[in-house]
Amino acid sequence: MGNADNYGYPSMMNNNNGENTGIHRVETPPPQPFFKSLKNTVKETLFPDDPLKQFKNQKPLRKFILGVQYFFPIFEWGSRYNFGFFKADLIAGITIASLAIPQGISYAKLANLPPILGLYSSFIPPLVYALMGSSRDLAVGTVAVGSLLMASMLGAEVNPAENPTLYLHLAFTATFFTGLFEVALGFFRLGFIVDFLSHATIVGFMGGAATVVILQQLKGILGLEHFTHATDVVSVLRSVFAQTHAWRWESAVLGFCFLFYLMLAKFLSQKRPKLFWVSAMAPLTSVILGTILVYITHAEKHGVAVIGELKKGINPPSIMDLSFGSKYMTTAIKTGIVTGVIALAEGIAVGRSFAMFKNYHIDGNKEMIAFGMMNIVGSCTSCYLTTAVNFNAGCKTAVSNIVMALAVMVTLLLLTPLFHFTPLVVLSSIIIAAMLGLIDYNAAIHLWHVDKFDFLVCMSAYIGVVFGNIEIGLVMAVGLSLLRVLLSVARPRTLVLGNIPNSMIYRNVEQYPNTNNVPGVLILDIGAPIFFTNSSYLRERISRWIDDEEDKLKSSGETTLQYVILDMGAVGNIDTSGISMFEEVKKNLDRRDLKLVLANPGAEVMKKLNKSKFIETLGQEWMFLTVGEAVEACNYMLHSCKPISSEDGSQKWSNNV
Amino acid sequence: MGNADNYGYPSMMNNNNGENTGIHRVETPPPQPFFKSLKNTVKETLFPDDPLKQFKNQKPLRKFILGVQYFFPIFEWGSRYNFGFFKADLIAGITIASLAIPQGISYAKLANLPPILGLYSSFIPPLVYALMGSSRDLAVGTVAVGSLLMASMLGAEVNPAENPTLYLHLAFTATFFTGLFEVALGFFRLGFIVDFLSHATIVGFMGGAATVVILQQLKGILGLEHFTHATDVVSVLRSVFAQTHAWRWESAVLGFCFLFYLMLAKFLSQKRPKLFWVSAMAPLTSVILGTILVYITHAEKHGVAVIGELKKGINPPSIMDLSFGSKYMTTAIKTGIVTGVIALAEGIAVGRSFAMFKNYHIDGNKEMIAFGMMNIVGSCTSCYLTTAVNFNAGCKTAVSNIVMALAVMVTLLLLTPLFHFTPLVVLSSIIIAAMLGLIDYNAAIHLWHVDKFDFLVCMSAYIGVVFGNIEIGLVMAVGLSLLRVLLSVARPRTLVLGNIPNSMIYRNVEQYPNTNNVPGVLILDIGAPIFFTNSSYLRERISRWIDDEEDKLKSSGETTLQYVILDMGAVGNIDTSGISMFEEVKKNLDRRDLKLVLANPGAEVMKKLNKSKFIETLGQEWMFLTVGEAVEACNYMLHSCKPISSEDGSQKWSNNV
Repeated sequence: MGNADNYGYPSMMNNNNGENTGIHRVETPPPQPFFKSLKNTVKETLFPDDPLKQFKNQKPLRKFILGVQYFFPIFEWGSRYNFGFFKADLIAGITIASLAIPQGISYAKLANLPPILGLYSSFIPPLVYALMGSSRDLAVGTVAVGSLLMASMLGAEVNPAENPTLYLHLAFTATFFTGLFEVALGFFRLGFIVDFLSHATIVGFMGGAATVVILQQLKGILGLEHFTHATDVVSVLRSVFAQTHAWRWESAVLGFCFLFYLMLAKFLSQKRPKLFWVSAMAPLTSVILGTILVYITHAEKHGVAVIGELKKGINPPSIMDLSFGSKYMTTAIKTGIVTGVIALAEGIAVGRSFAMFKNYHIDGNKEMIAFGMMNIVGSCTSCYLTTAVNFNAGCKTAVSNIVMALAVMVTLLLLTPLFHFTPLVVLSSIIIAAMLGLIDYNAAIHLWHVDKFDFLVCMSAYIGVVFGNIEIGLVMAVGLSLLRVLLSVARPRTLVLGNIPNSMIYRNVEQYPNTNNVPGVLILDIGAPIFFTNSSYLRERISRWIDDEEDKLKSSGETTLQYVILDMGAVGNIDTSGISMFEEVKKNLDRRDLKLVLANPGAEVMKKLNKSKFIETLGQEWMFLTVGEAVEACNYMLHSCKPISSEDGSQKWSNNV
Repeated sequence: MGNADNYGYPSMMNNNNGENTGIHRVETPPPQPFFKSLKNTVKETLFPDDPLKQFKNQKPLRKFILGVQYFFPIFEWGSRYNFGFFKADLIAGITIASLAIPQGISYAKLANLPPILGLYSSFIPPLVYALMGSSRDLAVGTVAVGSLLMASMLGAEVNPAENPTLYLHLAFTATFFTGLFEVALGFFRLGFIVDFLSHATIVGFMGGAATVVILQQLKGILGLEHFTHATDVVSVLRSVFAQTHAWRWESAVLGFCFLFYLMLAKFLSQKRPKLFWVSAMAPLTSVILGTILVYITHAEKHGVAVIGELKKGINPPSIMDLSFGSKYMTTAIKTGIVTGVIALAEGIAVGRSFAMFKNYHIDGNKEMIAFGMMNIVGSCTSCYLTTAVNFNAGCKTAVSNIVMALAVMVTLLLLTPLFHFTPLVVLSSIIIAAMLGLIDYNAAIHLWHVDKFDFLVCMSAYIGVVFGNIEIGLVMAVGLSLLRVLLSVARPRTLVLGNIPNSMIYRNVEQYPNTNNVPGVLILDIGAPIFFTNSSYLRERISRWIDDEEDKLKSSGETTLQYVILDMGAVGNIDTSGISMFEEVKKNLDRRDLKLVLANPGAEVMKKLNKSKFIETLGQEWMFLTVGEAVEACNYMLHSCKPISSEDGSQKWSNNV
């Protein structure tokens, strides 16, 4: 700071308020060895949450114990487990099981898989998650959107009705790849890829998928035998209305009654959160009621289709069914990855919202490894895609998952024959009731109010899914989201700053209409890192701002423009294209007899400007710590140098006056 | 600003310097109608250079004339043309022609096309550009990298030796699509897509392509008859050294002599810019000397291959040769687009550097339309891919292109028989000499010094092209460039700010090591727009900064943390995911008994925070115009409220003391 007097103007100046302001020197941070800075970058990119912090300064044995606890959190909280927790977990586990059993059967049918797979998938994966998962509140199970996505992607290659065994094996294989993909993402700390699915995308996509799932249930509700394979709303409605003669009123009446009951239960629980168990138990009671009703009335002979035979016994191994050599391999991998991304986006969002709500930390990458292991083990034990689901049943620890798994096991071993007469229409009602909750129109309205572009993304995903298919919707939404990010990088904002009266503060003239222009000085704020994607744009935009300002000054006959100050506070980084841009802007300004001044360049920018010698071209004396100091220096030059420009001896100033 | 006294603390405070500082109010900009703001966004995205500015407030006839001049700049500068310009253009045009003729023939051979196409392509396209182009300095012609790319992409589908007619027609079709693509990009103002090829990418890619082209010339230099179709360095060298017995020393000696002569001429011109014509004329004199030599010595019978018969006469029409229905259609379209992007990147860069150098404005999108029309017309008149080339021969206006075209026409009509005995080895030497100039190792060294990541991108492109193939190199470089941009969006910097002694300025503590911490206050600077891509990261990063700070304070036993100030100056925009992030951070801080304070939120951010009611959640009184004012308010609370917290009556403050 003592260097200010080298710059050719007094180091101390008085501003309007009589304040004593030293001119501060812009500093270049000390150079860092290449590998140290690389290490920092990699760490910041892949380990922003510093997961290995606890391992620092520990003895080897302690490190080993911490390591085991890290990958198997059950050993960490297991020792602190007590009876109070167990009571809560027992109730929660049974509640979840009563929800998971009917939903599992329903979603397996949605995926065109044998209904029993839904039960298998609610047995082994929760056990794996209890061992490896770090969230206390998550329950694990099958999900509707993932099931539908799997059906749609695998169904495009193999017809599940004609070739059920091949289809089943492909489903296991796809589940295996989902698991592998999830483990890989987590292990390489690439979980942030899931962040590229924005909230708006997920709202639209989930809403669309839920709409499609509901439309598919018309088959079950109306008791139809033939149904289109397409999922878009036009094909489905055409298919439904083309066979009005085949509608079965028995089935429809039953369906709407149960739907009404389920919605009522849900409405009650929402009104009174204490009654959440009413809603949680509703699906199971529906199944029981429906089954009894069919059994008594023999409705299965009057157009009400039933589940039929379910095999007794727990999961048979399926490791030999994974088919890695077949020609459908790419389909399986593609399906695995796409369903994996969607399942992760759902699971991580659920986990994170619990963690936020209850104030504990979740390591998303570690969770991904847990989800992945769950699917890999699942694919070898006759399970298909599972992920975290939002049951919110008051679990205390992952023991609730063990309780749930045990309840499902008992069902598998003893109770499967009871499902023989369960009418499909009840399952359809359960699915519809669950799906209606996924159509989050309030979120869409919120998006419309706050951010029109997010709303557009959301609607594209919805319309793409409902009128096209599930992949089209996903591609459209991700494409639009990325386009927005890339546009924000390609077209950063530039703002004109003005002086806030009686202060040294300079702010956007549009946001603060009572700011004053500084005569002869144009102050621009550059709003983003300067990369190859925006350097051409910024060059043109800066020159247009200058043109506009000169036109304005010319027409008003005021003083001419002399200085252009660029506020670099928001420029976090710069690449070589950006530096060339600065060199060209400098040349261009020199030609127009304007002086370029930089205010508040950051550490990274100073490093690069220094290495590329641009600081020498510009002159260190034309860089200031704040816009205020830059303006003061310009004003000083404008007013005091004019009469003595030739005697000054400093060619630098007199050029510009 | 008068509202400050509503906030519970005196509106005026004295800072250390005795300065009178009012607390300034953060303002939300007036709401804008949706369509107006949409219009602004679209305008800023697609028309950043405001090309229609000159049309404003003009009469219809004038508008028409301006419109014609806009699309055909020749009508604009034509009326100002004079004899002085003509003299310069005449010399420049002839110089360019003397370069373009041998290079045209050479590059056509590089593209596996009949040599005469190189001459055709130097006749019609320059005429089109003279009519429509807006750069005064550009010459138009064929380019080596584009030719090689075309040969590589089309050659993968059709063997030019076995099926020359089909290959030729595909080349015309690809050129047509290049033109169509360029016109479309320009017309829809999407030229900024070309910006996504960074300078580093282009340096690496061009260097790699030049290396590959040079390697290909070993065939001509060594007089080989058989040669590999692969372009990678390993295959080429293996092919060359597998047939050492077939090397022809006559050819090699001739080649190296001419190469030496060409390089010498280039070296001379670089030393003395006035002698630029020596370098410009060298290729033509080489051709003439080589031809005479072969004619006299009958070297064509001793292993020196010659061009042979060239058809006399100007371009025959080729519009009927465009094959839109064939099964190679997709190949043609793909080739057209890829070569189009590369040609544009080269052409626009050349044009822009001239425009910068001579201080006139180039509308990149308009230039693209001119290039595109040039290729569309060219594809109908037996020309292949052309773009702007950097000849720098002192042109004054586009008339030099007309002169050049006329010179080429004369050659086509009268002089083609003279090329019969031109040895191919001379063409190879010309290509090598031109390509050596494209290997810009100085630029690569500069990249290494200034930006290691740019260097990595550059080297990936180079290695991809040289060891893989031209498409692999391009994909790798573009992928890495985009990855960098996406990472910068996914992982924005966050910095801790400290107080610069004796000022109200707060800056990065790493860049300014002599800053002071403010006790009890953590100040973080967020360095990028907050979008779905980074909101999870920022949430975790902010909470880690707070953990670290609390650990530090705990171990040093100083005051506890009370306030977290987020400097939002660099946050240009925010989406709904970003707002959720703020809501979660606020909840999290509340739970830890910390107070969230925002400093300097911008216009867009204020709009969205306002619409989403976050301002109400936070409290308008916790937003400040500068970090300095925020710190002052926090200090005031920390020191003056402590003793009177209970009598204060303001629950808000006493919570935090």
